[in-house]
Amino acid sequence: MSDLPKTVRINEEGPREGFQIEKGPITTAQKISLIDSLSETGLKQIQTVSFVPAKNVPGMADADDVAKGFTRHPGVAYTALWLNARGLERALGIGRLDINGTLSLCASESFLLRNQKRTFEENLQAQHEMVAMYRDHNVPVVRAGLQAAFGCNFEGDIPLPRVLEMVGQMLDIGQQYELDLQYISLADTMAWATPLSIKRVVGAVRDKFPALDISLHLHDTRGMGIANAYAGLEMGVAIFDGAVGGLGGCPFAAHQGAAGNVCTEDLVFMCQEMGIETGIDLEKLIESALLAEQIVGHPLPGTIMKGGTLSRLREKIRARTSDVVAGNA
Amino acid sequence: MSDLPKTVRINEEGPREGFQIEKGPITTAQKISLIDSLSETGLKQIQTVSFVPAKNVPGMADADDVAKGFTRHPGVAYTALWLNARGLERALGIGRLDINGTLSLCASESFLLRNQKRTFEENLQAQHEMVAMYRDHNVPVVRAGLQAAFGCNFEGDIPLPRVLEMVGQMLDIGQQYELDLQYISLADTMAWATPLSIKRVVGAVRDKFPALDISLHLHDTRGMGIANAYAGLEMGVAIFDGAVGGLGGCPFAAHQGAAGNVCTEDLVFMCQEMGIETGIDLEKLIESALLAEQIVGHPLPGTIMKGGTLSRLREKIRARTSDVVAGNA
Repeated sequence: MSDLPKTVRINEEGPREGFQIEKGPITTAQKISLIDSLSETGLKQIQTVSFVPAKNVPGMADADDVAKGFTRHPGVAYTALWLNARGLERALGIGRLDINGTLSLCASESFLLRNQKRTFEENLQAQHEMVAMYRDHNVPVVRAGLQAAFGCNFEGDIPLPRVLEMVGQMLDIGQQYELDLQYISLADTMAWATPLSIKRVVGAVRDKFPALDISLHLHDTRGMGIANAYAGLEMGVAIFDGAVGGLGGCPFAAHQGAAGNVCTEDLVFMCQEMGIETGIDLEKLIESALLAEQIVGHPLPGTIMKGGTLSRLREKIRARTSDVVAGNA
Repeated sequence: MSDLPKTVRINEEGPREGFQIEKGPITTAQKISLIDSLSETGLKQIQTVSFVPAKNVPGMADADDVAKGFTRHPGVAYTALWLNARGLERALGIGRLDINGTLSLCASESFLLRNQKRTFEENLQAQHEMVAMYRDHNVPVVRAGLQAAFGCNFEGDIPLPRVLEMVGQMLDIGQQYELDLQYISLADTMAWATPLSIKRVVGAVRDKFPALDISLHLHDTRGMGIANAYAGLEMGVAIFDGAVGGLGGCPFAAHQGAAGNVCTEDLVFMCQEMGIETGIDLEKLIESALLAEQIVGHPLPGTIMKGGTLSRLREKIRARTSDVVAGNA
């Protein structure tokens, strides 16, 4: 019936995804407090900031201070995002981030032209230059990502053969430079995926490249985030990106409404209730989500932070039942 | 891989589920305007009001006026809810509602005692009395419903054998009185279901009673609504309750947060994008959702009403592409 994994790893993107799109102002101290709170939850990877020009993403103007200010927690990888050598050098200069390289293609040329002012061909060429840049800085390239893998607000549906071709292009680059690519991330950047297309695309990638681990980066703009994650789990996907509270969204994707990543704690809730281990303390993660909501100053789309966990309810029910049995009711 | 149905029927419960829990005040004219708007969407069944004492559910004090005031649309069944003979007689007295009877059991005795002040045994006995009442009024009994089929805020997880036993009890009553039961509704009244438990419970009911159609009544309190609907679709479930905008929630279920039914237009969006026919005009349904939001005066949890449909985006993209081809860009 399904192929649910036993354990799942969730990479938290809330601090980066979230704070880049919020109007703010959000103080450096607040950003640091959220990262510190997330560090206590059992998450193994937290994307902290993005090193991009402040004129493009004003919410990341204090990226250096945030990256220097949080408290590192043993066993947690603290990552960051950059788009070029200048960004990578800033990240390396911090001296306390976990720096890994990513190959990145985009399945929509329309989005690529708008977002990065590159054609498919130019973007493919740029990956070779990125690999050279990573080599120059002794940075391992461990991940390949495909943006807009399920559809694009500017281009529409993405043909499956194009997805397979682009995954193949990244694997070819990996082979050419002997990179240790650990997984491919398929990103539903503009929330076009449905559970059915998740199954179709993940299934086709898995069939063509059976040795490759797949991760999903999902957005909840059209309410399909958790259902899409479930479809991914059923296809054996065991790595997901999430954003605490459902923070975030890409400022260049022409999103309407709730544009955020799939909500980390809702995803953790679903996994735990289905017997899938995440290593995350859900109650602590909800505290982080409530902190995030307090920081941004408006309601976040996460639901478990409002609806409450079932484990907490089960405890209450057990306590009441014990009282009754002990004659205390 | 899955057993997705080709067509799905969605019973709209927004007017009843929604307006019973809203603090209001919501005028009779506003309630009527929402029902009239929903009548234009292609929905085949709309639950309009509940005939319960105004002291218990103040938001339904004007149920008679609402039920008399909306415009009947050909091909749409306008239903209502009642809990006893007094309520049924009020509903029949309106003279323009589509009156069908329902057998109803509850899988949690704790919830039953709180909500209806009955034990399991008393509730089972009450079904026989309800059948007699329906016979007295020449009302066909076409549906059996099991509340709290997936878990209960007061009792915890519900053992699967109990679900199967209670479905069997209702089918036995159906046989005893030669009722024409058309389907069984499994209700996740307090939002305990996950996609996995949907599959387990629906699968077990389907295996034990293969001739029976199953419908799902889902709540989104813990963010699992759409994922649970998807799991139901994969099990071949082709009848769902929904509430426009995600309105609603049961006032007696001790919900926290967004307590509403699964959002009708989000469900329709998922079905349409996966090639499942609903007969519903999604853009019109979104207009109804926006009207509902305006009526209740606070944001509703629905996402497609904010994020926009993909069919609308595809049209825009096609129009732009034609312009370019025609040299108008």
